[in-house]
Amino acid sequence: MAAPQDIVQITPRDGDLVLVCEHASNAFPAAWGDLGLTEAQREAHIAWDPGALPVARALAEALDATLIEARVSRLIYDLNRPPHSRGAMPEVSEIFEIPGNKDLSEAARLARTRAIYLPFHAALRAHLAERLAARRPTQIITVHSFTPIYHGAPRAVEFGVIHDADPTLAQAIVAEARARTPLKTELNAPYSAADEVTHTLALHATSMGLRNAMLEIRNDLIATPDTQKNMALTLAPVLKSAFERLES
Amino acid sequence: MAAPQDIVQITPRDGDLVLVCEHASNAFPAAWGDLGLTEAQREAHIAWDPGALPVARALAEALDATLIEARVSRLIYDLNRPPHSRGAMPEVSEIFEIPGNKDLSEAARLARTRAIYLPFHAALRAHLAERLAARRPTQIITVHSFTPIYHGAPRAVEFGVIHDADPTLAQAIVAEARARTPLKTELNAPYSAADEVTHTLALHATSMGLRNAMLEIRNDLIATPDTQKNMALTLAPVLKSAFERLES
Repeated sequence: MAAPQDIVQITPRDGDLVLVCEHASNAFPAAWGDLGLTEAQREAHIAWDPGALPVARALAEALDATLIEARVSRLIYDLNRPPHSRGAMPEVSEIFEIPGNKDLSEAARLARTRAIYLPFHAALRAHLAERLAARRPTQIITVHSFTPIYHGAPRAVEFGVIHDADPTLAQAIVAEARARTPLKTELNAPYSAADEVTHTLALHATSMGLRNAMLEIRNDLIATPDTQKNMALTLAPVLKSAFERLES
Repeated sequence: MAAPQDIVQITPRDGDLVLVCEHASNAFPAAWGDLGLTEAQREAHIAWDPGALPVARALAEALDATLIEARVSRLIYDLNRPPHSRGAMPEVSEIFEIPGNKDLSEAARLARTRAIYLPFHAALRAHLAERLAARRPTQIITVHSFTPIYHGAPRAVEFGVIHDADPTLAQAIVAEARARTPLKTELNAPYSAADEVTHTLALHATSMGLRNAMLEIRNDLIATPDTQKNMALTLAPVLKSAFERLES
């Protein structure tokens, strides 16, 4: 059984923003093994969101934001899915079968839920509850990356901003990104809440009445340390002006 | 510091329904004292939802439902409110000042949040996650009572059914209650989600994609063991037919 610090890492900072990176890691801890995947598969986008964590870290520094990152591959448990979702412990991800997830028993699903899903979201909940009890203004943004080619089809969008029930912050970010950057930016692309991708936001932001959004960055644009840093420097003023737009 | 079993009690059963009674108790454990309230005030509707727990227990038995009940007065922490809400540890409830909640320090708010809010909702989350990991069908209904006279004005509604984002189950319950009972039944009365009363549903049902509703029963109709039992016997077939209506 993994300890909570093997599941989630919280780097608190003073600003109003909390960044969450559920697909930060492609670690396959010994407790679960490699699920029968090759090393190449464990490096691929099915195992994590490549580039998302370095961008989130640089964004967090630039915006004085708290960063909450997962430390286990999404293929062991996808923290942005509830326990009854087929996507929580997927048997197939895009075109790849995941042998270690095939025909999981109820006990195995429950064990992963207890070991990964519950402690990650309990830590996030406890952190947020402490901020909120102190009446600190709080906004939540999740940071993801997506593959440029999915099921064989290229994706033209470069930067997607997705909302849960409240579109306010997502709309403001899209407007600022279009005004300030050359990125091909779309609202609710390449996914939307209907695809179950706003579970973390629903759990922690919508339920608390907090402004929120999910960022999706095409991963070919953040494949190296330099481009990751540049993307963070591009997006930091976008987020900052979106917040200011909503405050005024 | 109270132990978790002093905060929440879970009675598991085999059916699909989970009943939650956040305002079940008017207990004022020694850790927090009586908040400067008289005994009469601690018996009044401001401290709890009189009659809600016995009705919820009888409903749970009739429907083979799991029951999750709070064991601390809502005036110490209202479990149906997030930590930043003024209503979580209210300084005033209806027309009554709550001396022990006046000018609470950040540390005091945080201590109550940690001692009551977090363990209650963590227990509920863990219970639900285990059901969901096992792919058990699950619906959530919260059970409340309301005072017949509020701020001096009588309330005509007898049975209110309130929804969070998804109105489906609430609408079905209202339709069945009107068809099967003489209760003056209204949707989203005497409150609605806009009054912050669906926090538990947002946290645990909406975020999980589970059908849900909140029941509000006028407390003069459930003031004695006999009327409590009768109300449960009246409402059990209403809920059962609402579930069946949605399944078909």
